[in-house]
Amino acid sequence: MLPRIALLGLDWGTSSLRGYLIGERGAVLAERSAKAGILHIQNGAFAEALLELAGDWLATDENLPIVASGMIGSRQGWAEAPYVEIPAGAGDLTLHRYDGFDRPVYIVPGLARRDQDGVPDVMRGEETQIVGAHISDAHGHNGDNPRTDPKKELFLLPGSHSKWALVMDRRITWFATFMTGELFAALKDHTILGRMMTDSNGNTGDDKAAFARGVKYGHAKGATLQRLFSARTLALFGELPQTGVAAYLSGLLIGAEIAEARALVHDLSTTITIIGDPDLGQRYLTALSLCGQSACLAPDNAVARGHWRIAAANGLLSVAAACATP
Amino acid sequence: MLPRIALLGLDWGTSSLRGYLIGERGAVLAERSAKAGILHIQNGAFAEALLELAGDWLATDENLPIVASGMIGSRQGWAEAPYVEIPAGAGDLTLHRYDGFDRPVYIVPGLARRDQDGVPDVMRGEETQIVGAHISDAHGHNGDNPRTDPKKELFLLPGSHSKWALVMDRRITWFATFMTGELFAALKDHTILGRMMTDSNGNTGDDKAAFARGVKYGHAKGATLQRLFSARTLALFGELPQTGVAAYLSGLLIGAEIAEARALVHDLSTTITIIGDPDLGQRYLTALSLCGQSACLAPDNAVARGHWRIAAANGLLSVAAACATP
Repeated sequence: MLPRIALLGLDWGTSSLRGYLIGERGAVLAERSAKAGILHIQNGAFAEALLELAGDWLATDENLPIVASGMIGSRQGWAEAPYVEIPAGAGDLTLHRYDGFDRPVYIVPGLARRDQDGVPDVMRGEETQIVGAHISDAHGHNGDNPRTDPKKELFLLPGSHSKWALVMDRRITWFATFMTGELFAALKDHTILGRMMTDSNGNTGDDKAAFARGVKYGHAKGATLQRLFSARTLALFGELPQTGVAAYLSGLLIGAEIAEARALVHDLSTTITIIGDPDLGQRYLTALSLCGQSACLAPDNAVARGHWRIAAANGLLSVAAACATP
Repeated sequence: MLPRIALLGLDWGTSSLRGYLIGERGAVLAERSAKAGILHIQNGAFAEALLELAGDWLATDENLPIVASGMIGSRQGWAEAPYVEIPAGAGDLTLHRYDGFDRPVYIVPGLARRDQDGVPDVMRGEETQIVGAHISDAHGHNGDNPRTDPKKELFLLPGSHSKWALVMDRRITWFATFMTGELFAALKDHTILGRMMTDSNGNTGDDKAAFARGVKYGHAKGATLQRLFSARTLALFGELPQTGVAAYLSGLLIGAEIAEARALVHDLSTTITIIGDPDLGQRYLTALSLCGQSACLAPDNAVARGHWRIAAANGLLSVAAACATP
């Protein structure tokens, strides 16, 4: 018997579009991706991009629901799904229904948080990954269900804009954005720090010792702005090989990010779960370990499981499929 | 009677060359500048650039000593003057004599410092400005002279690479570099933060309220990497005009620099003396004031007075001129 298909999940970000054909229990039955992120879409041709990726899938079942997360729901996307304030779990992420396609497209809203100064932070797309990765009990799929033992989990989603998020009892209760990846690229390509980054063969290298040194120095308390310059002076004094400067700077920024996040979260007794690209995740695992912090990598396809859980919490799945939600 | 000329001082940096004709008591008799920083010099034509700027001055007195400070003494300059370790005052800055010109050129060495982790920091050029700006007693010109009341002074030299320096009894005892200016430029021009920085007329603006808001938020304890993203989110939520984003980001980084420097220096009971460009100096004055820190601007031509003091301490001036050093 062929597995029953319950949902088409779309992870539609700035640079890429990923589609997941999701079956009962949230299992990923098929997966495809295209370089059709919202920055690549010309003249609002979102429908065409979706049909190109998944037209055949949609043709097999005219009632197959579509749930999309990521920048597709931003002002620059297909339809804007306003931010939802934290705390928020699957049940609080009320899907934004868009009717401009040949069937409804349900868009996951992003999340917003205000700090004590009233300054906002936002995420869009990561909330779905986190909802998909958090531990859920066997029977519930709705973050609003009361539980007797609230479970606290800490998630880290590294990238251009690295996100840290706390989950209490399956609801995101806090998060913060660190521009680590984008800052690294800007410093490397557009400041004096990049000038000593290659050897005579043009290699930027992947020097593990330099990375570790950077992590430790960056993680030491405070003075992040001031410590940046060490990526130049150490090379200037021949105390860091030019092939190690990029790895050192990457470590320095990641170490600083970990220190800042630790100070913001306070309690880091929880193991950190890293969601995202395995290579970058491995880099962060190494860095966290150097900082005395245990961490693990989330299973693949957290985003698809997030689509599934949010769809279920929004009553979008058939009763049979929803009850089988993991 | 024409004033007697005692010294040609050169402030020769990366982007520009400034020449000062210095008379008795360190007074600046004439001043010229050219876009002849070491990055603009082709094929090592330093002598030609100097003659073009000051050939007529040199022709009037074949014994006129030349003292040069700045990146001219770096590996990429005319002749490398190795770094001197702190603590260092005028008397410790042993001039590096270069004989490849038609008369000796005396180059001021840069300074190096090691932090507790052994990581170096450096300055080259700023040491001369600081030596020129620090308070000296009426009779001494040599930083090694014992004094009965050691005077502590804190200097700030804002710029692409902002420097903070402590002076105790006319010797630089500590300094640190903050890449604030270069970081601002890289973030503005090469990250997502720059995308919301203009209004429809292309203005980047000079919004005083936005600057002040940035300073206060950036100065609040820690989390510099995390706070950067506020330059985007505030604009995204319409809580900062797009014409204010550049000023906000500038304030945010300057506020963070002040917080980091305060934490490194510990005792900030001393008034801070700002040396450098008046517009940028004014910006830092405003920021320091917002952070509850008093500050003042150094008189002009600190660098020329530094050339004078260092030349005197190195025995380069005639006895009459040296005794008249301020």
